[in-house]
Amino acid sequence: MKAARLYEYDPTMKVQLKIEDVRPPTITAPDEVIIKVGAAGLCRTDLHIIEGVWKDIMDTGGNLLPYIMGHENAGWVEDVGSAVTSVKPGDAVICHPHRSCGICLSCRYGHDMYCDHGLFPGLGLDGGFAEYFKTSESSVIKLNTGITPLEVAPMADAGITAYRAAKKAAKLLNPGGYVVLVGIGGLGHIALQVLKHTSGARVIAVDREPAAQVLAKELGADIVLDGGPDLIEQVKEATGGGAHVVIDFVGEHGTQNICWKLLRQGGELIMVGYGGTVEVPTLELVANEIKIGGSLVGDFVELVELMEMNADGKVKMHQTEYSLDNINQAIVDFNERKFTGRGVIVP
Amino acid sequence: MKAARLYEYDPTMKVQLKIEDVRPPTITAPDEVIIKVGAAGLCRTDLHIIEGVWKDIMDTGGNLLPYIMGHENAGWVEDVGSAVTSVKPGDAVICHPHRSCGICLSCRYGHDMYCDHGLFPGLGLDGGFAEYFKTSESSVIKLNTGITPLEVAPMADAGITAYRAAKKAAKLLNPGGYVVLVGIGGLGHIALQVLKHTSGARVIAVDREPAAQVLAKELGADIVLDGGPDLIEQVKEATGGGAHVVIDFVGEHGTQNICWKLLRQGGELIMVGYGGTVEVPTLELVANEIKIGGSLVGDFVELVELMEMNADGKVKMHQTEYSLDNINQAIVDFNERKFTGRGVIVP
Amino acid sequence: MKAARLYEYDPTMKVQLKIEDVRPPTITAPDEVIIKVGAAGLCRTDLHIIEGVWKDIMDTGGNLLPYIMGHENAGWVEDVGSAVTSVKPGDAVICHPHRSCGICLSCRYGHDMYCDHGLFPGLGLDGGFAEYFKTSESSVIKLNTGITPLEVAPMADAGITAYRAAKKAAKLLNPGGYVVLVGIGGLGHIALQVLKHTSGARVIAVDREPAAQVLAKELGADIVLDGGPDLIEQVKEATGGGAHVVIDFVGEHGTQNICWKLLRQGGELIMVGYGGTVEVPTLELVANEIKIGGSLVGDFVELVELMEMNADGKVKMHQTEYSLDNINQAIVDFNERKFTGRGVIVP
Amino acid sequence: MKAARLYEYDPTMKVQLKIEDVRPPTITAPDEVIIKVGAAGLCRTDLHIIEGVWKDIMDTGGNLLPYIMGHENAGWVEDVGSAVTSVKPGDAVICHPHRSCGICLSCRYGHDMYCDHGLFPGLGLDGGFAEYFKTSESSVIKLNTGITPLEVAPMADAGITAYRAAKKAAKLLNPGGYVVLVGIGGLGHIALQVLKHTSGARVIAVDREPAAQVLAKELGADIVLDGGPDLIEQVKEATGGGAHVVIDFVGEHGTQNICWKLLRQGGELIMVGYGGTVEVPTLELVANEIKIGGSLVGDFVELVELMEMNADGKVKMHQTEYSLDNINQAIVDFNERKFTGRGVIVP
Repeated sequence: MKAARLYEYDPTMKVQLKIEDVRPPTITAPDEVIIKVGAAGLCRTDLHIIEGVWKDIMDTGGNLLPYIMGHENAGWVEDVGSAVTSVKPGDAVICHPHRSCGICLSCRYGHDMYCDHGLFPGLGLDGGFAEYFKTSESSVIKLNTGITPLEVAPMADAGITAYRAAKKAAKLLNPGGYVVLVGIGGLGHIALQVLKHTSGARVIAVDREPAAQVLAKELGADIVLDGGPDLIEQVKEATGGGAHVVIDFVGEHGTQNICWKLLRQGGELIMVGYGGTVEVPTLELVANEIKIGGSLVGDFVELVELMEMNADGKVKMHQTEYSLDNINQAIVDFNERKFTGRGVIVP
Repeated sequence: MKAARLYEYDPTMKVQLKIEDVRPPTITAPDEVIIKVGAAGLCRTDLHIIEGVWKDIMDTGGNLLPYIMGHENAGWVEDVGSAVTSVKPGDAVICHPHRSCGICLSCRYGHDMYCDHGLFPGLGLDGGFAEYFKTSESSVIKLNTGITPLEVAPMADAGITAYRAAKKAAKLLNPGGYVVLVGIGGLGHIALQVLKHTSGARVIAVDREPAAQVLAKELGADIVLDGGPDLIEQVKEATGGGAHVVIDFVGEHGTQNICWKLLRQGGELIMVGYGGTVEVPTLELVANEIKIGGSLVGDFVELVELMEMNADGKVKMHQTEYSLDNINQAIVDFNERKFTGRGVIVP
Repeated sequence: MKAARLYEYDPTMKVQLKIEDVRPPTITAPDEVIIKVGAAGLCRTDLHIIEGVWKDIMDTGGNLLPYIMGHENAGWVEDVGSAVTSVKPGDAVICHPHRSCGICLSCRYGHDMYCDHGLFPGLGLDGGFAEYFKTSESSVIKLNTGITPLEVAPMADAGITAYRAAKKAAKLLNPGGYVVLVGIGGLGHIALQVLKHTSGARVIAVDREPAAQVLAKELGADIVLDGGPDLIEQVKEATGGGAHVVIDFVGEHGTQNICWKLLRQGGELIMVGYGGTVEVPTLELVANEIKIGGSLVGDFVELVELMEMNADGKVKMHQTEYSLDNINQAIVDFNERKFTGRGVIVP
Repeated sequence: MKAARLYEYDPTMKVQLKIEDVRPPTITAPDEVIIKVGAAGLCRTDLHIIEGVWKDIMDTGGNLLPYIMGHENAGWVEDVGSAVTSVKPGDAVICHPHRSCGICLSCRYGHDMYCDHGLFPGLGLDGGFAEYFKTSESSVIKLNTGITPLEVAPMADAGITAYRAAKKAAKLLNPGGYVVLVGIGGLGHIALQVLKHTSGARVIAVDREPAAQVLAKELGADIVLDGGPDLIEQVKEATGGGAHVVIDFVGEHGTQNICWKLLRQGGELIMVGYGGTVEVPTLELVANEIKIGGSLVGDFVELVELMEMNADGKVKMHQTEYSLDNINQAIVDFNERKFTGRGVIVP
């Protein structure tokens, strides 16, 4: 089958994935599922993998290269192991990025992402930038009637990461409250839609890019700001003293230390983007009783919920498609922010 | 001033309110506020008062008649007591129906409706079917710019009762879940709008009246049913086994014993309407782990939140207006369900 | 192996289990686990099975008799299927009564008890009143060091049913609040201990049996009542208006309609016992904003949590032991309430 | 009356309070209450006031000195304003430190500490290091029968600050979970007792002082550590990977950057002490999904709840008493940590 493989890390991002013909995966355990890839989203984590950011964390047992990246996958079931009962060949599915064990205590609490034995196809083992890839029954979700893999692939990771943060935010918000979303890219525009349907609160969208600002407005943002030097004052004024919740989808370049200053007393910052370091005086934390917490990829059930919102027409992925042959161009365009929303690879 | 007073109870509802000229209220304590009534909603509880349903509960200290009913009031501040600082004459306000003490433990927890010393103008003491009525600082909320008392008066009771139930429901619902609203009248149509903006779930609206069904569809109900004899089967099929939450705005005529049968395992019935008796085998409660709970008028902060949703254009009161002189006609029309949404009296 | 099997249903409870020699279970699927039974608790549900109460629910596909009852099992792993990795032969374990699938949506939310494909050894298929029984990896929990199967077997069902109800109650209670436990038997005495360690509230224990009253006092109940005709007045007075939470472990003989009258405004009744029918006017539900909900056996993670409390010495099972040969005597004694706490069968 | 007044700020803490005879407070508004002081706790904030830490925040309208400090007050009602109905002269009471308005939105939500118009006797206006002081009806709580002001005074601030943090922690903890308390002083020893009764989790107490370690053990800490350089490794090992919750009562001297490293994935740090700056890479926040939040003085209802726990014998203040004449010695001893628990001034 055709696949795009990474052969070396390169902090300068000049390396290219090799498009080559490789042996397709086969079933080797009873719970496995082979997926014919319909589409695979391109994630910032893919850029970080190429840069070598994950090398020290992933390659502890020796060099894992070359392998096929791609962890935002949707397609059709091609083959299943002997114990699989919930899907059958031909079913259209989306794949949660994590193959969780279902037995450890984290899994039993429903926290798939904390699974003691989880695998993440596309990070250190072959993923979905290919015609076929392999996952397990525990990660597949059948698509609702009429939904195609192409429409939803990036929901598998970008989507649920945004959804999880938005769901946390919605629990903290009341009608009349304010939530600030910093960064309206592949994740932020999903969070915006989720919050419009689940919180009753007002959404303030912040992005430097005019195209992202337009998208935010179209998706129903109550206020759109460009993230200039007056951001703190603008938010304080618009909200009467600060936001109830802020979600930071950037997490670097100083954003992370502006975001907690946007909060009112009792407010909470949810950090999704990463890279920078938060520095906050304990007196600020205590006197204003604010909270700062990270948010990870969503759990399996969160992907189920997001797919229901998508099926209901409440949340759509704004995306740009590239053929698998053209994946290196997609990576360049993503890095240079040439498209809004998400880039998707179609094999 | 002109006012409509009730002089006798009548289970047959043939008695009429007397429109007469009475002495307007005056400030007699530092926390009091006199309101020039802009509009006052007509509530089913008003019918029950006339019928004498509340007689034994309210008139324990002797006959309270005649008095002015009307507990869904909005208008403009006319005069304030010496200790009042949060509003001033001329301010447009809506009045929470309960004058809570602010000192008892229930008040301190924010549960105004459980106040040990609460008063309820319009039930046993003069209310808003008049040109002026008296309440306290603890019950008034300033209207957002551009909002008139006429647009929102029934929010004061019908609105927050529906809002409180909808807010409880939203906390129990996830995207992809189902909530059934039984009765799309003055309360149900508000709950529908609130749930569309705060839950991400699918709303099934049930009403026997075609006009109410049309209204439900216009307000975004995902499914509209007529509440016929197949209701249980219809809901089980549409929801794949039962609803996650049901709100019963009727609570009598047998509805109350159909509603809990609409639930799936783990589901919850929120009872707002009343009159009938629930009969449920404990085995059903336990084996299906379902819950049945009543819901009261909302708290002060819930009225604040609802007014914010209204100001944002997310929730609007569907209503029919009557002049104070015409209040007896309004009562007849309400009793015969001649209008959808809420009836409102304008002095 | 030796086992006690039921051959016929008998509403008069005169039938006896037959103690006989049967073929021990063997591994036939990769996720199965064979347990050498250390002890098996005797549950009221076992009495109901004998009476034929479950016949119509369980035997829909034809007569399931004879089979081995016993669903509160603990012991040592004897053998495991090829896919089992979390336990190995020799491990001391307790077995959650439900063999859940781990794949259906209920399982993914952590709601094992709602599993679409669950099996319940001891109800319709062979359970633990024997030397060996078979379950699956998804139901076993390794015992903490120093804990023996004999000490904990009834935790597997009686324990977690009580724990789940107590955990729900603790979430509703604040220090200074009151919780009433009606029935201090095998379940009630566990709930009492759990609440003393997790709620900060005051526990009122109600039981007609003097021995149960003594046990309640020893376990720290703040108030012990005998459930006489003045119960409602006694509770209203002791609590200053009603309890915040009531747990009904009886659920029949009229108890179910006394329990909701013990609540204060905003209170909640958790129904665990069953048999009777709740009759409650909707006006009571609404005006007092009370809630009535059933509670099922606990989930897997709740058994994990309970076992941790047991390992910490916070919760102990009060029990009386019988040999497997003597199981029919145990059943008689249980039915006549000859012992407090739980009866346990030791093979 | 006799009172201790501060005349100048001194970062070196060499200044002494002047014990002098001043005019006692009198009622000047209808909601005021005069308290005959029974006891007044000495708080670290009092040291910070003397050092001048609060000068820039409090003295914005000009020099407030001299005034009487003391914000942890309990005593007997001496006189009440005309509108006060919930207490009368002679009642033994404890005083919440905040005089909240009861009208602003924060108050209506029950968040007294966020009150828009709150006053804090002892910070910028006369407090309780005197024979009498003045507060309002909204801050007083009647003591349970048999409880004396002397036993509970520091509950008013130290107590509820610890209680609020412990209550937040308890909501995050399950039986079998671990909570680490860093600093077992006047606050930490209260949090320890609260958690033992409300969480079911295991408590790890950390303090450098042997006397504090002994107190922790006596109060039921499951593990006591001395906070040496191996703290992170010790906690990781004892907890199997990290604590579920950490409460930092120190918040300076580097503690604040050790504390978040004690957490497991999904864990939460509650910061009560302050002074230092938290520095945390966003990657740590996100990849481990940890949360860091400040916690303020508790609300009025939290003081009510704590007083109930105290009345039940579940939580006791460990304290050392000094006469008002001896207050300067108390300050020196506190600064040099010569006593465990709390210092209390008795007029």
